[in-house]
Amino acid sequence: MRMSALAEATGLPVATVKFYLREGLVPPGRALSRTQAEYDDAHVERVRLVRALTEVGGLSLAAVRRALDAIDRPEPTRVGVMGTAQEALAEGEPEVGGAAYERAERFLADRGWCIEGNPFVGQLARAWAACEEAGLGLDEARLGRYADAAEIAAAVDVGSVPDDPQGAVRQVVLGTVLVDPVLAALRRLAQQHVALTARGAGRRPR
Amino acid sequence: MRMSALAEATGLPVATVKFYLREGLVPPGRALSRTQAEYDDAHVERVRLVRALTEVGGLSLAAVRRALDAIDRPEPTRVGVMGTAQEALAEGEPEVGGAAYERAERFLADRGWCIEGNPFVGQLARAWAACEEAGLGLDEARLGRYADAAEIAAAVDVGSVPDDPQGAVRQVVLGTVLVDPVLAALRRLAQQHVALTARGAGRRPR
Repeated sequence: MRMSALAEATGLPVATVKFYLREGLVPPGRALSRTQAEYDDAHVERVRLVRALTEVGGLSLAAVRRALDAIDRPEPTRVGVMGTAQEALAEGEPEVGGAAYERAERFLADRGWCIEGNPFVGQLARAWAACEEAGLGLDEARLGRYADAAEIAAAVDVGSVPDDPQGAVRQVVLGTVLVDPVLAALRRLAQQHVALTARGAGRRPR
Repeated sequence: MRMSALAEATGLPVATVKFYLREGLVPPGRALSRTQAEYDDAHVERVRLVRALTEVGGLSLAAVRRALDAIDRPEPTRVGVMGTAQEALAEGEPEVGGAAYERAERFLADRGWCIEGNPFVGQLARAWAACEEAGLGLDEARLGRYADAAEIAAAVDVGSVPDDPQGAVRQVVLGTVLVDPVLAALRRLAQQHVALTARGAGRRPR
């Protein structure tokens, strides 16, 4: 198919598809002439993938590039799949101050989570510090209940990694990024349900 | 304090604080002369709030404006607090196609959640449809386990709403927005923990 058909098949403007090609996020088509190229179903799939990572997942271009590299690299073990996907998704953000980072590390150690070398300890420290700065009163006990919720979600994530090593990294990268907005929507819906039902009404604010 | 001190107290460039003032997100200071104004602690607090909503929460300017309006309006009941906060946080995004929306409504009805008039049904439908389009195989059973996780998180949210009606909407708006990145980080950390421990290894991929 030509560029216009590729754009139509993926529901994107031609300019966006050209941008993906120029940035090397989508491989070039087979050249038909100096100005025309032929694209196939693999291009459609790759454009959709880039779109999902950027538009739904909100990933930066650098993160999309790392995610695509990881997806193209098969990993034989489940732990390898998780590590590769997580490294790809971790933004290279500046480290947070020592105290916030150490508090996050201590929380995770007390919980007994195996998270050695995990790039998201810094993200947790930053996000937790932002809550504290805003006066939300998010102490270790409340964070522990959020961790209970996260563990249930993670068990679903890990349980749905396919056997096929080629598809596994893709599944974890996409699942991690695309399920975030699903969980965010479910949490907001559940807030209303909990507030309206006995479970929420019976619990007095602390 | 002057503009420069306000910027320093909030850790933001003067240009950003001026932008917040120009956009009406922060009320004007007390005019000292035609070009100078005096700011106080309430301005520091408001600038920090806007910063948290935009930088950590990733809210659009329109959503920040709605959130600030909601925060300034005291709500006497817990259900009122939740509804006001949720309306403020719901982006006025275009509605999704009928089938995806109906599937989400059916899922929520089967679960027995009280979500009448909740603006996040559309967000759930969109996010779920994006997962399906990406071939993640997110069926009702898996979504149900994510909903279990969301319900635990929501119970923590609702349980920590303060009695003070003035502060309650602020707590829910900020808590909803700022805890999203905390939950995202915890989920990624838990993925590694679950994959490395017996709980993950013992469960074969389906």
